[in-house]
Amino acid sequence: MGEFDLIQRFFQRPAERNPLGVGDDCALLAPRPGMQLAVSSDMLVQGRHFLPDVDPRLLGHKALAVNLSDLAACGAQPLAFTLALALPHGDADWCQSFSQGLLALADAHHCELVGGDTTQGPLNICITVFGEVPAGQAILRSGAQVGDDIWVSGSLGDARLALDALLRQHMLPAPVLAQARQRLEAPTPRVALGQALRGIATSALDVSDGLLGDLQHILHASGVGASIDVRATRQLLAASRHPLMRAVASSRIDACTLAGGDDYELCFTAPGAQRAAVEAAGRVCATAVTRIGNIEALPGLRVFGPQGERLPQRWPGFDHFA
Amino acid sequence: MGEFDLIQRFFQRPAERNPLGVGDDCALLAPRPGMQLAVSSDMLVQGRHFLPDVDPRLLGHKALAVNLSDLAACGAQPLAFTLALALPHGDADWCQSFSQGLLALADAHHCELVGGDTTQGPLNICITVFGEVPAGQAILRSGAQVGDDIWVSGSLGDARLALDALLRQHMLPAPVLAQARQRLEAPTPRVALGQALRGIATSALDVSDGLLGDLQHILHASGVGASIDVRATRQLLAASRHPLMRAVASSRIDACTLAGGDDYELCFTAPGAQRAAVEAAGRVCATAVTRIGNIEALPGLRVFGPQGERLPQRWPGFDHFA
Repeated sequence: MGEFDLIQRFFQRPAERNPLGVGDDCALLAPRPGMQLAVSSDMLVQGRHFLPDVDPRLLGHKALAVNLSDLAACGAQPLAFTLALALPHGDADWCQSFSQGLLALADAHHCELVGGDTTQGPLNICITVFGEVPAGQAILRSGAQVGDDIWVSGSLGDARLALDALLRQHMLPAPVLAQARQRLEAPTPRVALGQALRGIATSALDVSDGLLGDLQHILHASGVGASIDVRATRQLLAASRHPLMRAVASSRIDACTLAGGDDYELCFTAPGAQRAAVEAAGRVCATAVTRIGNIEALPGLRVFGPQGERLPQRWPGFDHFA
Repeated sequence: MGEFDLIQRFFQRPAERNPLGVGDDCALLAPRPGMQLAVSSDMLVQGRHFLPDVDPRLLGHKALAVNLSDLAACGAQPLAFTLALALPHGDADWCQSFSQGLLALADAHHCELVGGDTTQGPLNICITVFGEVPAGQAILRSGAQVGDDIWVSGSLGDARLALDALLRQHMLPAPVLAQARQRLEAPTPRVALGQALRGIATSALDVSDGLLGDLQHILHASGVGASIDVRATRQLLAASRHPLMRAVASSRIDACTLAGGDDYELCFTAPGAQRAAVEAAGRVCATAVTRIGNIEALPGLRVFGPQGERLPQRWPGFDHFA
């Protein structure tokens, strides 16, 4: 199938929320008065971000989900996105499944596909997403204050647990793998929670490269340090609560929750006086929120074990070139 | 060199025109009141869009130039861009040269790098560019009217002439190749001309896949047909005016000018009453503008030779999957 047929058949739909969509040299966006436009771009490469045999429908979902997760982290409401796609060949079946997964998530967030590019090349998916946020209200990485609580949404580590099982580094019972794999292949961007945290959270980011590595970005941008309590983070691995996983080692739980990657949960900070507000935001958005530590003046990131002992720092964040 | 070091060293500069640049989950843009945001995304893949031995400095220039060309085509003023980059390895020398070429062109257009992504993978460059255009004044592909003149900016075909020589499909005298290669590797986006044509041109696009193929997009979007005069288009190959190229065959000139690709010139339509205004816009922007044909009611695209004879349609537009 030719390039322009592929675009027209699977990726071109009339723009409704935006002045001009797919089909011209540019798309046109018109943020509402008083709104800033939040922009984020993520590139997904086969073998780095997904396995070669992944279901293209799930891949379409995930490619947009990881971008929506960035909008969530700054409290923006999704508006539109562009899709640039390098494909080895013009495979109509693949494009149909991919676009179904992609556009179903897009529709769920009223986020319109407004443009992009299609080319021949090694499979590569680059989405740039646009959201609206009231001017001055975006939640940045740089706002954490000494004394703030550190919070995490949802669950952490299941994606890594599944990936390691798929790569045959360990075995998982089939029902546990199925549940964890869902987290790896179809993550849920915390879009509603991100917006609910505006005015409550002092800083936020989305956890994509592992909790400890990503949290370092907040500490660095805010000029603060932090302590983390593994008694709290060990509660975050959903799979560890499955009856078939009772014997899972705490070292594996820590590796997955503290440095797993691919979680797409929000890690954020908020003053102690906002605990009830954070919990209310979580309830309204049907998303668990868990307090895992505190922001401190002492630089650096410290992790404490169940007996209050300081644990060695064994978990670097993910670095594509390290 | 690690991922975050690469970003910080070569791609992170403080945002000046935009509220928030590189380093958070999202960048923030604030289009001025009354402005719409024009958005375009292009993905460049090694072996498809550039040769493996291209100078990374020129590649940085071209990667942004092809995106600015899309802004030019709709009459938008550049504002900001994101860069997503897949690199085989964290090569600091390559990144330094690439970023120099990229940011020099960005600075020339006051277009800020505000965010993006860096990952390991087969070399792939995806830029998404943002520009401002007064609401309702973007020049679209759909506005061509029966009777309009068809115009092209600058020169056409030299990039293809150079590419074919580099691929050893024909020989070019060294000074001609050097001049034509400049057009292939460092195209000039017609940003000022695009803005000057607002209110004058009825439709426009940038010529990237070959003139005739791209012009078909205007005809299709506008529901019209066109006739092209090759006596005009043959004047557009700059290399053909070089003393060492006096004997160049008209068939090669036609192949390069009508279907060469990689030109990044503007093809646009304007009413006959606007001829003086178009020429004045060209003068102000120091960019040649050439009338090459007319929009007609009869559907289809007709090409006429020097004796007024209709030429066969031998030049399909570029299709990545055809």
